[in-house]
Amino acid sequence: MAGQNVLTPQSEDFPKWYQDVVAKAEMADNGPVRGTMVIRPYGYSIWERMQAEIDARIKRAGAQNAYFPLFIPQSYLSREAEHVEGFSPELAVVTHAGGEELAEPVVVRPTSETVIGEFMAKWIQSYRDLPLLLNQWANVVRWELRPRLFLRSSEFLWQEGHTAHATAADASAYAMKIHVEVYNDFLERVLAVPTYLGIKPPSERFAGATNTMTCEGMMRDGKALQMATSHELGQNFATAFEIYYQNEEGQAALCFTTSWGSSTRLVGGLIMAHGDDDGLVLPPHVAPIQAVVLAVRDDDEVNAACQSLSDALEAADVRVTRDHGRGSFGRRVTDWEIKGVPLRIEVGPRDLAQGLVTVVRRDTREKLTVAITDVAATVAALLETVQSDMFAAARRFRDENTHDVATLDEAVEAVQNGFARLAWDRVGAEGEARLKSEAVTVRCLQRRDGSIPADESEPDLVAIVAKSY
Amino acid sequence: MAGQNVLTPQSEDFPKWYQDVVAKAEMADNGPVRGTMVIRPYGYSIWERMQAEIDARIKRAGAQNAYFPLFIPQSYLSREAEHVEGFSPELAVVTHAGGEELAEPVVVRPTSETVIGEFMAKWIQSYRDLPLLLNQWANVVRWELRPRLFLRSSEFLWQEGHTAHATAADASAYAMKIHVEVYNDFLERVLAVPTYLGIKPPSERFAGATNTMTCEGMMRDGKALQMATSHELGQNFATAFEIYYQNEEGQAALCFTTSWGSSTRLVGGLIMAHGDDDGLVLPPHVAPIQAVVLAVRDDDEVNAACQSLSDALEAADVRVTRDHGRGSFGRRVTDWEIKGVPLRIEVGPRDLAQGLVTVVRRDTREKLTVAITDVAATVAALLETVQSDMFAAARRFRDENTHDVATLDEAVEAVQNGFARLAWDRVGAEGEARLKSEAVTVRCLQRRDGSIPADESEPDLVAIVAKSY
Repeated sequence: MAGQNVLTPQSEDFPKWYQDVVAKAEMADNGPVRGTMVIRPYGYSIWERMQAEIDARIKRAGAQNAYFPLFIPQSYLSREAEHVEGFSPELAVVTHAGGEELAEPVVVRPTSETVIGEFMAKWIQSYRDLPLLLNQWANVVRWELRPRLFLRSSEFLWQEGHTAHATAADASAYAMKIHVEVYNDFLERVLAVPTYLGIKPPSERFAGATNTMTCEGMMRDGKALQMATSHELGQNFATAFEIYYQNEEGQAALCFTTSWGSSTRLVGGLIMAHGDDDGLVLPPHVAPIQAVVLAVRDDDEVNAACQSLSDALEAADVRVTRDHGRGSFGRRVTDWEIKGVPLRIEVGPRDLAQGLVTVVRRDTREKLTVAITDVAATVAALLETVQSDMFAAARRFRDENTHDVATLDEAVEAVQNGFARLAWDRVGAEGEARLKSEAVTVRCLQRRDGSIPADESEPDLVAIVAKSY
Repeated sequence: MAGQNVLTPQSEDFPKWYQDVVAKAEMADNGPVRGTMVIRPYGYSIWERMQAEIDARIKRAGAQNAYFPLFIPQSYLSREAEHVEGFSPELAVVTHAGGEELAEPVVVRPTSETVIGEFMAKWIQSYRDLPLLLNQWANVVRWELRPRLFLRSSEFLWQEGHTAHATAADASAYAMKIHVEVYNDFLERVLAVPTYLGIKPPSERFAGATNTMTCEGMMRDGKALQMATSHELGQNFATAFEIYYQNEEGQAALCFTTSWGSSTRLVGGLIMAHGDDDGLVLPPHVAPIQAVVLAVRDDDEVNAACQSLSDALEAADVRVTRDHGRGSFGRRVTDWEIKGVPLRIEVGPRDLAQGLVTVVRRDTREKLTVAITDVAATVAALLETVQSDMFAAARRFRDENTHDVATLDEAVEAVQNGFARLAWDRVGAEGEARLKSEAVTVRCLQRRDGSIPADESEPDLVAIVAKSY
């Protein structure tokens, strides 16, 4: 039902479908300065839920939130040459403030790595101060010439974690903990997005990292989206920022650091991982509205039933909203479908006379006739079913569209419809160049069993290869 | 006990005391760019609790969060001339981005008023879209030549609410609702800070506002701090940004708008409203750590008792932390006092042998001997007592230091130690100039009974006069 002509079909033009959904679901608008975005209340309420879920996991992993300044002295960014090379064309620079030209221009943070490094060096005295586990929620700016709402914007919102450790092993274990217990757990349980977890090949690592771990999700057009990354920085960063600690023997020793981040890009990933031709399809755990109680028509008896149903659902901790019966029923159904609300509870006079309502799932379109007295219990349970079914469906889609291949040619062919998986030793530096000429990249390296390798030199690794956002 | 020589006493040099507390309690540091600040984990955890409490109240008042861009075209700020005059010397301007000079420089938002106005005009079509109630949590930049951590920084964190209404009465009622149900309720119940609620005299209004409401708190040095403000903007802003709606008769009509904000300045206010010579004194509702279980010495039996006590407190929903017995007991007590933790539970071997512990209140220094089996229940109840006692004590301090006077001369004299209150018709424009020459201002106008007047022309108003931050 519904949806025809409202959105461009995915199969016709996926990027246009994405634009249409973002606009029609009232997720975001383009800001007045090129590349910036306005996140509208509905889009922001999804981001707020993501933040709360990620933040709770970060705190459980022992990190503490702090806040570092938006403005960074230009000189900081040249302290780690490798780092600045990765960023300088993307920087926004403030040259005037307080009514005059600044003696030293300041940069709007593209990440807070450098300023956090500076303060870590100041705060860390002895081994007793380690590990130092910091996280920040903030806006960052990286100038974009080809912006796309949520996916690539000049300003975006994110969290960036930065930690310092006494040993390489501790740093490595913590980066892995964040990757698995924060990011992957959030992606699977909240966003219902299965990803390929692995390490980046050296050519795709974050500037200055000794190892970069990634979660690569498959979008409905078969392309990859990097959902979150965790970096081991070895002692590179600690060397540049002189992050020393006094060890138990009283000697100065260099720290090992990590960094890890996820951003409003996740909202784009959520849209593209589950959306269909009728709009968003939101997993219940992240949906700001989990169920809408919809009056089929504007009628006192129907409205009273809707009110008591929504009260009962609220009491059962369901995030519920009510849609009174004014305006076209079809149009209202279409609007709620575009917004991806997981369950629609239709209340009409005929059903009501029999003590029944109709519950419609957004993900499968399945319709259930439910006794009005059972609605609260049914809906609460059904939301969990929808959540797990959505994850299973996304995993099936990913698996069916991941093609095991033996050669680079086959990989290039296969990624026209999904991901390709092939032996990493069939790729190598030359193979990576070949793939890049076809706008294809190695998204990550995994062990054969799908687990995360320690580094790219492990034998018998596979490369997950795809086109990407 | 404790505290001597750690902090400058308030009576000796209050500004120095403030600096010392902010540093020693590990609340914040100066950032590398002049005027910016680094909010350390302990300071940030206080801000996070403030945010959560304010945000919940804003949502109950019906407003929705959204996010607008950091960068604003310079041209936007000249759309409302009165507005830009209030800000231009404070602006930070980005002239270069993406590796080249921008055709039009962009301003780092000093507030999002203008860009939100632009989008309100776009989103509002008819009376059915009203009221439009938006809020944003964000960082803003106003270049400061004489910065002070939390109180005045070039970048600060805040929430800014912006709403559009069909009628002046609706706008006015909503600004009042926010002022009373969000700000004042939060200040009283969470921060335990009583304030004088009132309207600003015309000379002190926000640029473009037809009415500005304020909450003025009294700091321990007798100066005033403006804790939050709510503005009625009449149709001034709607005119500048062409925020029209179609009324029920199908005619285009101008909206009435409001704006309201509170910021990380509240952290400074919290410090100065309750702090003493030994450091912070935090009200339990905003304290990140409500109770610390302190082992008097490092001993297996003591540590085991501390562990089971802190488990019991956690189970009773108390935010608790444990301090093992290593290092000097006196030094550890001093550190927890500086951090303002409301209750300290001291566990020593002698008390323990009798099944007792000592509970010490940070606010009154009162010591209670409590049976170990009663600690969880006692502490949970005592935290509420501390919260209400702190509010009562702050109100008593404010009332005792508010002096009713009859003349401007007496007012200038009185504000050397607190606030002065005098008839508004004794002040007037000339009186305001006289006061300003003594670095004193009219903080707000109230009715005799302390309630908020509709405007400054009401008869028989009083002026609250003070030195201020």
